[in-house]
This record gives sequence, C-alpha cells and structure tokens, in this order.
Amino acid sequence: MKRNIFLLVTAAILIPFLLVKSQTNDNQKTLKAKFTIVMHAGAGAISRDMPDSVKKEYINALSEALNIGKNILEKGGASLDAVEKVIRFLEDDPKFNAGKGAVFTSEGTHELDASIMNGADLSCGAVAGVKHVKNPITLARAVMEKSPHVFFIGEGAEKFARQMNIELVDEKYFFDKKRYDQWQKMKQNAEKNKKGTVGCVCLDKYGNIAAGTSTGGMTNKLPGRVGDSPIIGAGNYANNKTCGVSATGTGELFIRNTVAYNISAMMEYKNMSLKDAVNEMIHKRLKPGDGGVIAVDREGNYIMDYNSEGMFRGAANSDGVFEIKIWE
Amino acid sequence: MKRNIFLLVTAAILIPFLLVKSQTNDNQKTLKAKFTIVMHAGAGAISRDMPDSVKKEYINALSEALNIGKNILEKGGASLDAVEKVIRFLEDDPKFNAGKGAVFTSEGTHELDASIMNGADLSCGAVAGVKHVKNPITLARAVMEKSPHVFFIGEGAEKFARQMNIELVDEKYFFDKKRYDQWQKMKQNAEKNKKGTVGCVCLDKYGNIAAGTSTGGMTNKLPGRVGDSPIIGAGNYANNKTCGVSATGTGELFIRNTVAYNISAMMEYKNMSLKDAVNEMIHKRLKPGDGGVIAVDREGNYIMDYNSEGMFRGAANSDGVFEIKIWE
Repeated sequence: MKRNIFLLVTAAILIPFLLVKSQTNDNQKTLKAKFTIVMHAGAGAISRDMPDSVKKEYINALSEALNIGKNILEKGGASLDAVEKVIRFLEDDPKFNAGKGAVFTSEGTHELDASIMNGADLSCGAVAGVKHVKNPITLARAVMEKSPHVFFIGEGAEKFARQMNIELVDEKYFFDKKRYDQWQKMKQNAEKNKKGTVGCVCLDKYGNIAAGTSTGGMTNKLPGRVGDSPIIGAGNYANNKTCGVSATGTGELFIRNTVAYNISAMMEYKNMSLKDAVNEMIHKRLKPGDGGVIAVDREGNYIMDYNSEGMFRGAANSDGVFEIKIWE
Repeated sequence: MKRNIFLLVTAAILIPFLLVKSQTNDNQKTLKAKFTIVMHAGAGAISRDMPDSVKKEYINALSEALNIGKNILEKGGASLDAVEKVIRFLEDDPKFNAGKGAVFTSEGTHELDASIMNGADLSCGAVAGVKHVKNPITLARAVMEKSPHVFFIGEGAEKFARQMNIELVDEKYFFDKKRYDQWQKMKQNAEKNKKGTVGCVCLDKYGNIAAGTSTGGMTNKLPGRVGDSPIIGAGNYANNKTCGVSATGTGELFIRNTVAYNISAMMEYKNMSLKDAVNEMIHKRLKPGDGGVIAVDREGNYIMDYNSEGMFRGAANSDGVFEIKIWE
C-alpha cells in the first residue's frame, strides 16, 4: 500500500513535468524552423529625387529577388541555394552593378568579383577579375564545392568555369547603355564615384547560415583592381556560431578593417549582439559615406545598416516580415 | 645653521631620488627604442635528413636575410623598410618559394602573390597572379602607397608595375631546376604537396608594426588559384594596437579561418597574450600539418609557431636575441 502511494505521488510529480518538457521540445522545434533572409543591391549616393516610375522598378525587382529566396527557405531549402538564386537574379538584372549591367573599368571593360561562404563548415569560394562568366556567384559556389581551392582569378577562373560547364558569355553581354553613360560622365568628373554590389545572407530552417556577395566593382576602376567582395572576411563571411554578413561600399576600407569577419569576432569574443557589433563597425569605425552591411545572426535576428545616403535592401522571415527599403 | 642642515638633509633625500628618476627615464627611452624582427621562409614537410651542407646553405641565407632587417631597425629605420628589404632578399634567393625559384603551376607557369600592411594606419597593398614582377613585395608596397586601391591582380597589376617603374622580368627568370624537378615528381604523385611562403614582421623603434608575405603558391596549383598570402586578414595583418602576423601553410585553411586577423582579434577583444592567441589558432583551431605563423606584438614579444614538421625561421631584437631555426 505504501509503495502504491509512493508510485502515485511520484507520477503526480513527474507527469506534469514530462508534459511541460514535451511542450518545450515542440517549441524548440518551432523555433528551429525559423528562417531569415536579408539582401542588398548596393549602398551609396542614391538620389532621393529618383522619379516614382524608376523607384517602382527598383522596388519591384528587389521584391522579386527577395521572394525567390523567401520561397526557397519557406519550403525548407538550404541557405546556400537561397543565397545563390537571389544573387543570380540580381546579377541578371542590369539595374544592379553585378553580372549584366556591371560598371566599366577605366579601359571600358568589365571585371567581375564574387564570393560565397557556408557557415556550417566555413567552406568558401571566391572569384575575381572574370570577364566572361554570366553568373560569378555560381562560379564562386563551384570553386567552394568542386575545387580543392578557395579563390580563383582571371583566366584561370574562367578555365575552371569551362571545366564546370558554367555559362560563359561574350563580354558584350554585360554592356548596359545606362552604365556606359554613367562611365562617360564619371570620366569627365561630372559624377560621383559610383559603386554598388549585391549580396544576400540567409539562415535556413536547419540553422545554417550562408552569405554571398557579387559585384562589378567601382566605375572607372583600374584594370586588375579587386575590392572586398571576393575577400572572405572583408566583404563576405558566414559562421553558424555567430552570423553571416555581406558588405557594400568602398572596398578598400572594408579590406583594411576586415569588416565582415570583424562583426563575427565582436560577437564571438566580446559577446556583443549582432546589432551592437554592426553599429560599432558602421558608425564608429567606418566613416560616413563608406557603405553598409546586411547581416543575420544564428537566432534569425537581422540588420541592414549603412552610413551612406541609401542602400537598396530587403528582408523577410518566418514571422511574416517582408520589407523592401531604399532610404530610411 | 638650522636652515643649512635642513637644506643638506633635503638634498640628501632628493639627490638619490633624482638620480634614480633620471635613470628610469633613460631606461624608458631604451624601452621605447626596442625593436623586434621575425621572419619565415615556409613551413611544411621539411626533411630532417637534409645533408649538413644543404642545411648550412639555408641557415646562411636566413641569417643574411635576418641581418638585413636587424640592421635597418637598429639604425632607427622603419618597420616597413625592414619588411620589404628582407622579403626582397628571400624573393631573390631560389631556395625559397617566392620570386626567383617560385613553384610551378599545373601548366608549368609561375604566378606570384604578395601583400604588405602598415600597422600604424592599417593601410595595405596586395597583388596576386603576377607573372613578370621580379619582387612582388615591392609592387604590393607601391599599391599601398601610390594607388587609390588595395589589391591588384594579373595583367592589371603588371600594368600598374610598369607605371611605377617596378622591375619586370621575363618569365624564364623565375625558373629553377630544383623546383622544376620537384614539380615533375609532384605530377607523378611521388612527392608530397610542396608549399612554402616567405614573410617578415617587424616592430621598429617608433612602435610601428609592419607585416609582409610573398609566395609562389603551392606546387602544381591550378592556374589562377590564389591562397592566403595576398589576403589581408588571412595570410598577413598588422595593427599597432595589437600585433603583426605573417602566415605560411595551406592557404585555403588560412582564408577560411581568417588566421592573421583572428590572432589580432583575440588579443583586442579577449585580452589574450600574443602567445596564447597564436597557440589557440595553430594548435586548437588548425590541424597538424596545416602550417604556421610568425608574429610580433606591440611590446616586442615575438612568437614563431607551427603545426607542421618544421618551419624555416629567424628572430632578432634589441635585447641581443639572434636566432635561426628550422625544426625545434
């Protein structure tokens, strides 16, 4: 009898505890099924006097890009796939300075750079100075996944692209009349130094963070100049332990300050939040006009911050956020 | 009389104190006039069965290189000058894999990478994939000091070299019979993957740290492959606030782990000593065989650590240290 009472009491204590425990586990599963995507298409002197029709074109294109990534993540797709697909879309759109519509070098050519990083194992791939690769982000991913190396440049990178059956195009493909006129103005010093880059960072439902960045560089750059976009740790970084970051701005300063990895380092070593680490980097260490970053941490918190006039950007997540912004 | 005794007593107390004080000031001057140089010429599977005559050749060359830098620093020269001159010497020596005697790519060509960084203002310069530049470290310094950019690759880098009157040579200049035989063996998989890089880090009497790294890459690398040497933050970094670092090893892993900047970040953000930060990186995060680093902190402490069989290395400082080592 005593033993039965003991068992009953034990059960009375344990059952509610086990129920709560099982609920917690369910909640944890739900929490783990969170996803977040952030995306940028360049920061800089974006004129607020832009006609409404032009503004609408930008917003439509950015919404479409964001939807591509959001849909992949929503269906349980991998962050790497979402990053690559979003950036491919932005590369194909001549409105943005990556892939088709890339800026001109001082010699009238196009030289494209891109990188991608997998936060799950820190594997990464990058290419710089490619002239005939339709989608440099896809080549960067092939470098990461299918070569023993991390970084390929110039003709060697294009030779690897051919081996991987990655689409090559005639240099004319990248030509865009608007960019050409911009370059002509720039050469006459009539226009500010135009720059721009596209990037995407995603946290998928499995907790994996991936980041990608792709660019045509800065208008009228000297041939052979490489900025931060293909430099792991400067213009791009991803680590499941901390965050993923993609940068846009004056590449030289982002290399010097190891911007993307530095944000992760402040989180890992100083226990700073993503928001505080990005704020420290963009508003205290860099100077007004230098550029901006987009970033996602392992909890799905995101931030899109910049110290220039504006940044084409967007974010979406599993809580129903879907926002596209240019200025505030 | 009482007054005189008071003066005498006061003098008796003050004079020794003033003497000690003046000595302390002198000591402080001496302390500030400290300098340190560390240097490496590659880490990897360095055979201990090396004949004594060959070992002597290596040690003589390393001593000569170290003396070049030590003499510059001793006379109050700048850390940047010492770094550049030491690396130029190592580039010119075919025994080391940088400049003359650089390894062969899978196509039998030479592609050289280098970078340099000034810890005083975080300015930096880098080049990758150059085929005709006799001393890539000097070109990297010109990129840092005389271009608006930080990183130049391939033909664009060589065009900039011509504008700067930096010596260009025929590709044949880099040929070395020993390296050629090594490559032939490597292609038959008879030899381990040979790699090597040269680097130098200095703290000068003004408290300025500079770091430089130069390489021919890894034997039989695919054309266009770039490792960590020209990547600021991966194979090279300098910051007067913390330390200077030059790395050698499997470049892909050093890029992935942002090795050089990471050591500085652990010092800045976690208050770790140089020794502990290097130990954490080389022995806890990287794996045996990956490579090593040389580093100097702002107090002049230095470390040369690696997880491979050996590392060609040397260090000297204002306290009279002058050491050259290959294994322990």
